[in-house]
Amino acid sequence: MNILDILVGKPIRTSEERAEQIGPAEGVPIFGLDSLSSAAYGPEAALSLLMPLGLAGIHYILPVSAAIITLLVVVYCSYRQTIGAYPSGGGSFTVARLNLGPSAGLLAAAALMADYILTAAVGISAGVGALVSAVPSLLPHTVALCMAILIAVTILNLRGIHQAGVIFAVPTYLFLGTLLITIGAGILRAATSGGHPSPVVPIPPPPAVTAAMSYWLLLKVFASGCSAITGVEAVSNGVLAFRESAVDNARRTLTIIIFLLAILLAGISWLVNVYGIAATNPGQHGYQSVLSMLTSAVFGKGAFYYLTMGSVLVVLSLSANTAFADFPRLCRAIAENNYLPHAFAYRGRRLVYTYGIVILALLCAGLLVLFGGVTDRLIPLYAVGAFLAFTLSQSGMVVHWHKHRGPGWGPKAVVNAAGAFATGITVVVILVAKFAEGAWITLLFIPLTIALFVAIHRHYHAVETLTACKAPVRVAGLNEHPIVVVPVERWSDITRCGIEFAARLSPEVIAVHVETSERADSLGEEWKLYVEKPFLDSGRKPPRLQMVPSPYRFVIVPIVQYILDVSNTNAGRTIIVVLPELVEGKWYEYFLHNQRARLVEWVLIARGNERIFTVTAPWYAGHRK
Amino acid sequence: MNILDILVGKPIRTSEERAEQIGPAEGVPIFGLDSLSSAAYGPEAALSLLMPLGLAGIHYILPVSAAIITLLVVVYCSYRQTIGAYPSGGGSFTVARLNLGPSAGLLAAAALMADYILTAAVGISAGVGALVSAVPSLLPHTVALCMAILIAVTILNLRGIHQAGVIFAVPTYLFLGTLLITIGAGILRAATSGGHPSPVVPIPPPPAVTAAMSYWLLLKVFASGCSAITGVEAVSNGVLAFRESAVDNARRTLTIIIFLLAILLAGISWLVNVYGIAATNPGQHGYQSVLSMLTSAVFGKGAFYYLTMGSVLVVLSLSANTAFADFPRLCRAIAENNYLPHAFAYRGRRLVYTYGIVILALLCAGLLVLFGGVTDRLIPLYAVGAFLAFTLSQSGMVVHWHKHRGPGWGPKAVVNAAGAFATGITVVVILVAKFAEGAWITLLFIPLTIALFVAIHRHYHAVETLTACKAPVRVAGLNEHPIVVVPVERWSDITRCGIEFAARLSPEVIAVHVETSERADSLGEEWKLYVEKPFLDSGRKPPRLQMVPSPYRFVIVPIVQYILDVSNTNAGRTIIVVLPELVEGKWYEYFLHNQRARLVEWVLIARGNERIFTVTAPWYAGHRK
Repeated sequence: MNILDILVGKPIRTSEERAEQIGPAEGVPIFGLDSLSSAAYGPEAALSLLMPLGLAGIHYILPVSAAIITLLVVVYCSYRQTIGAYPSGGGSFTVARLNLGPSAGLLAAAALMADYILTAAVGISAGVGALVSAVPSLLPHTVALCMAILIAVTILNLRGIHQAGVIFAVPTYLFLGTLLITIGAGILRAATSGGHPSPVVPIPPPPAVTAAMSYWLLLKVFASGCSAITGVEAVSNGVLAFRESAVDNARRTLTIIIFLLAILLAGISWLVNVYGIAATNPGQHGYQSVLSMLTSAVFGKGAFYYLTMGSVLVVLSLSANTAFADFPRLCRAIAENNYLPHAFAYRGRRLVYTYGIVILALLCAGLLVLFGGVTDRLIPLYAVGAFLAFTLSQSGMVVHWHKHRGPGWGPKAVVNAAGAFATGITVVVILVAKFAEGAWITLLFIPLTIALFVAIHRHYHAVETLTACKAPVRVAGLNEHPIVVVPVERWSDITRCGIEFAARLSPEVIAVHVETSERADSLGEEWKLYVEKPFLDSGRKPPRLQMVPSPYRFVIVPIVQYILDVSNTNAGRTIIVVLPELVEGKWYEYFLHNQRARLVEWVLIARGNERIFTVTAPWYAGHRK
Repeated sequence: MNILDILVGKPIRTSEERAEQIGPAEGVPIFGLDSLSSAAYGPEAALSLLMPLGLAGIHYILPVSAAIITLLVVVYCSYRQTIGAYPSGGGSFTVARLNLGPSAGLLAAAALMADYILTAAVGISAGVGALVSAVPSLLPHTVALCMAILIAVTILNLRGIHQAGVIFAVPTYLFLGTLLITIGAGILRAATSGGHPSPVVPIPPPPAVTAAMSYWLLLKVFASGCSAITGVEAVSNGVLAFRESAVDNARRTLTIIIFLLAILLAGISWLVNVYGIAATNPGQHGYQSVLSMLTSAVFGKGAFYYLTMGSVLVVLSLSANTAFADFPRLCRAIAENNYLPHAFAYRGRRLVYTYGIVILALLCAGLLVLFGGVTDRLIPLYAVGAFLAFTLSQSGMVVHWHKHRGPGWGPKAVVNAAGAFATGITVVVILVAKFAEGAWITLLFIPLTIALFVAIHRHYHAVETLTACKAPVRVAGLNEHPIVVVPVERWSDITRCGIEFAARLSPEVIAVHVETSERADSLGEEWKLYVEKPFLDSGRKPPRLQMVPSPYRFVIVPIVQYILDVSNTNAGRTIIVVLPELVEGKWYEYFLHNQRARLVEWVLIARGNERIFTVTAPWYAGHRK
């Protein structure tokens, strides 16, 4: 257990839960990294699409950003209400399920799961991509770097939400601080220079115009930018992680995240426009990210520049953490409704949902390995899931308000309806704009996942019904002794202990020996001497030694067949199979002995019936009692 | 079991062993492929080393071949005697162990194991190498091709020695036939042309002279050629595989193999000399193997040429089979003396030593993958092992004759002494000539393997001593009833069956429930209703329900701890732990349920004592009794 103690920390008592809960200070890094880091790549993604428009394209960044920020605010207001209405965690799954029915809940759950798996993989590979473009000699180690970050994030999350929050706080606040300073200084310079600041470091000239503006292009730019909003769900689903009063703390956290994100998006867009910064082509020589150009234009390439760029890089790599914070909570909610294996609802030694974290890490590792650590092509896929879940959640909230009709329910319903409408439109926009690029894959993943949910639910229900018991224990027949069967290979102390135990269980003991070697004769004599004699001497019926032939040299099959025969010819009787077993001190010593006892046990479980029970009679090498 | 039936065939009864035994016709392909195939690469290897001598180098092939054939005949005579002296299989391990002591036996065993593992890997990669040089587009699939051949050879060997012999007979005899025809026709042409035949297809001119002849070079050529002899051991170790009279059949097989190999080596060397065929460089354009040049010189590049080359390729690939035939027998002999896990002595469904075959295949696959299917660099390593084993075996035979001093023992001892001397010298030659090229690796492998043997032997001896039992069963105290502990998660039919079984074993039953959820209260009520009441109604002491707290949410640990506590406070009493378990119909359904019963069982076996027994009480989903 010591390795676990070092890796993920000592177990935390359930009663110490309070100490593990977090406030807004830790909440922002844990639940906000996904949203906030999108300030680093959102404007870049939009500007890349606008490149064919040349200098004119840069100006379109303002209306697009305004639209995105508006959507962000609408979604914020909606989710703020959801948090209040579902103080024990109101993820899309819960809200949709309770208000729109189980099917809507499963749809939201599947969509969100797809979103989180992709977010985690894309976040890590984006961070590594930024690092690799800064230090090209690391390029051959892309997958290894991705794995290293993935393992670090996984372990930090397994160590508990509180520690994760504290550790992620440093890069998060450094990132926020440096970017806000850059934006502030940029605005100041623009103001003092009459709106036309001269960059400290020259900016590459805008690309040549190769296309005319079209609404289709703007739609695509908007759809790309929407990935900035995908992390908002996490806070509303994780209300229980906050300390009292949880609702207030969760709301505060959400407010801080959205407010900061809006400022970053607006500030960056405005400065890009003022400085005339166009995106450069990542594939070509002289590529620089938009944030890099912006920071160097405002401050030059000094220490501050490198500090900013470093924090951007770290935050990008860690943006996967939001998925790690919320995916396990989502899985728990699904599992508690019997749509996923119950193990997802189990809280590990550090009070986190271990299985969800591990499964997300494995799926994410699979994606990263499959795509060689370059997951750009997954980006179009993942906003669909998030916005589909948002739409369902907000629609559910409208129904919720309408159902309860509390004081002032009207305006609240209107806010959520606005959210549902805005995100619904966005789903359609993303689907249309990104369908051919891969959004269809998400549309394929979602029904398959739902089918899995339904199959699991059906199975749990069947087992529940089958094993439900309203009958008392049957006391009749408890005195009837069982038939005990002991497979015996040779006469040894292990066998002796097994026989002694068997004789304790019942006066009717049968020892079975499979005749595969020449041992049968000597065993017969030892049996007479060491077993039959003491039994007869004390006036008891001795155990019977049954020889079973094995023309094919099999050992397991004849034993199991003999036991099944005994069971069939003794209808209604209980059969106990005693398996004498040598227990070794070291695990590798097991390779030196046949594991027939285990095999007999497994085959009996698979082929046996409810009247056959197997007992392991362990014999400990090294320490005799 | 159906897949196994198709892959390796239906089980063969032990009593049908006779039908599985082989005669010389199958013996040659099974035990001779390794030796015979060396006719295809032995002269080539020698000529390659002689290339720096130009045309003069070709002439040296005759004396070198003469030396190798002489050594072959000496080894043959020695082993012929060994077969007679050890009719139940006289491998180097057995002969050295019985005559020179256990240490010599282990040394021979380790050396031979190294030899076989390397032979198998080198044989397969040589065959694939020949194929790839013929069809260069297959080059990227080298490892896959190696694996395909390895799997085919493994499965054929698992199907039983008889089938393997029949299937391998076709390429073996095709190979022998075509080569013998080529040699015969070549000799005829040389005779009719007065010793100077003109090749049908022109032969590349011999390379320029770049070095002078040296004895050192000849020594290296001889050492390279010796790899031709490494397969001879196999027949003497596999005498039992032959049908009656086994000794005669084994001797006949060995005679045929050695006779054919000698003819092939002599014929090829002579013709190479007559035609003036020099080796070409495999790395350079226009490379052709020596056999290819020879066949085309005699017959031109017609259908016969391609038939010959095809059979050479197949025989090279299958030369690994000798290792597969003898390695498992060697391992069995070692295992029967307790130096390897006993599983190696187990004869599988087709009467072959399954574990040896599978382990060889795995080790071989490991080598092939590690070296990317190009194992040329392993060639220097493997002759050391074989010749070391030969030397020990022949020395052992000398001691054997001297010990028994039967009629005419003197000449026999002289023959074996000659064998021992010749092979001993060869070991030194190979070590000196090939030490730097990697023979030292074998010298490292051998002591490590011996250390493993010794450790295993020591362990078996310790267990044997510990468990040896000369005491009768203790009948006293058999009537004392055990304490039965039943872990209970919730009230269900599974639990009810478990309790009923527990009550059958003893009147003292304790049910343990770990308090991790809110179930405790309802369980308490159900317990009163469904368990306590019927027991009290029938005037029995009801089982006790024990609640165990779990501050860290662990389930396994508190249960195991409770059981250990019960065991400690009830010294001398037997504790039976009944684990009610749901048995699912499909294996994947197990993921939906916790496997706590299994875990409790494993932890109890590891941490428990000899008074604690675990019983699985299976409850079958789907079919109720």
